[in-house]
Amino acid sequence: MTYPLAEDAINKAIAQIKFNDAGLVPAITQQHDTGEVLMMAWMTADTVRETLESGRVCYWSRSRQEFWRKGDTSGHIQTLKKFTIDCDGDTLLLQIDQVGAACHTGRRNCFFYDVTEEGIEVKD
Amino acid sequence: MTYPLAEDAINKAIAQIKFNDAGLVPAITQQHDTGEVLMMAWMTADTVRETLESGRVCYWSRSRQEFWRKGDTSGHIQTLKKFTIDCDGDTLLLQIDQVGAACHTGRRNCFFYDVTEEGIEVKD
Repeated sequence: MTYPLAEDAINKAIAQIKFNDAGLVPAITQQHDTGEVLMMAWMTADTVRETLESGRVCYWSRSRQEFWRKGDTSGHIQTLKKFTIDCDGDTLLLQIDQVGAACHTGRRNCFFYDVTEEGIEVKD
Repeated sequence: MTYPLAEDAINKAIAQIKFNDAGLVPAITQQHDTGEVLMMAWMTADTVRETLESGRVCYWSRSRQEFWRKGDTSGHIQTLKKFTIDCDGDTLLLQIDQVGAACHTGRRNCFFYDVTEEGIEVKD
């Protein structure tokens, strides 16, 4: 895709999404070429719009209650390759290209507590 | 993994998860051998327990407000291969083996509304 996406396309995307009572929708991000699931975070209509205009993934930080353009502080930006809405309109799947670490712990992805027969195993 | 998982391991997993105010946590399911993201649904502590005891993925249906063992009606069961909790404890990633379609529309996965320059493109 090339950015910014047309205003009409962005409006259609936002109309298709069912935001929850807090105005949020969960977005799963997946590394576009390897299929690795990197993280899950939340978006508002405004951050969906900003993402589709800029091609840089932007979330809503629930903990800080603020606009969060991934990578502005860390440099670990996410470039959008594909934006998909699910059957119910209440979950997004973003195919992206991740620079560096998606996780704030410095790990490539956020999913590192494996449940095993022995309990919880923490991946490096 | 072999099921049922030890009671102690299940308790540790549940203790690690931060359920939201409604007692729910989002679970992303991914086909274990291809990396395809199939769906996202919600779990309670009880459905996490049932999943780790049985090795069959069980969710909480928010629309029906009931226990939902995936495939009981459709035959499209999900066998758990790996259960991972994210950095914040508020999202799960399940590597599974999906029989048939994950989506209630009959599609293999739920993510079929692609946002494009022209608006929304519906995948088969």
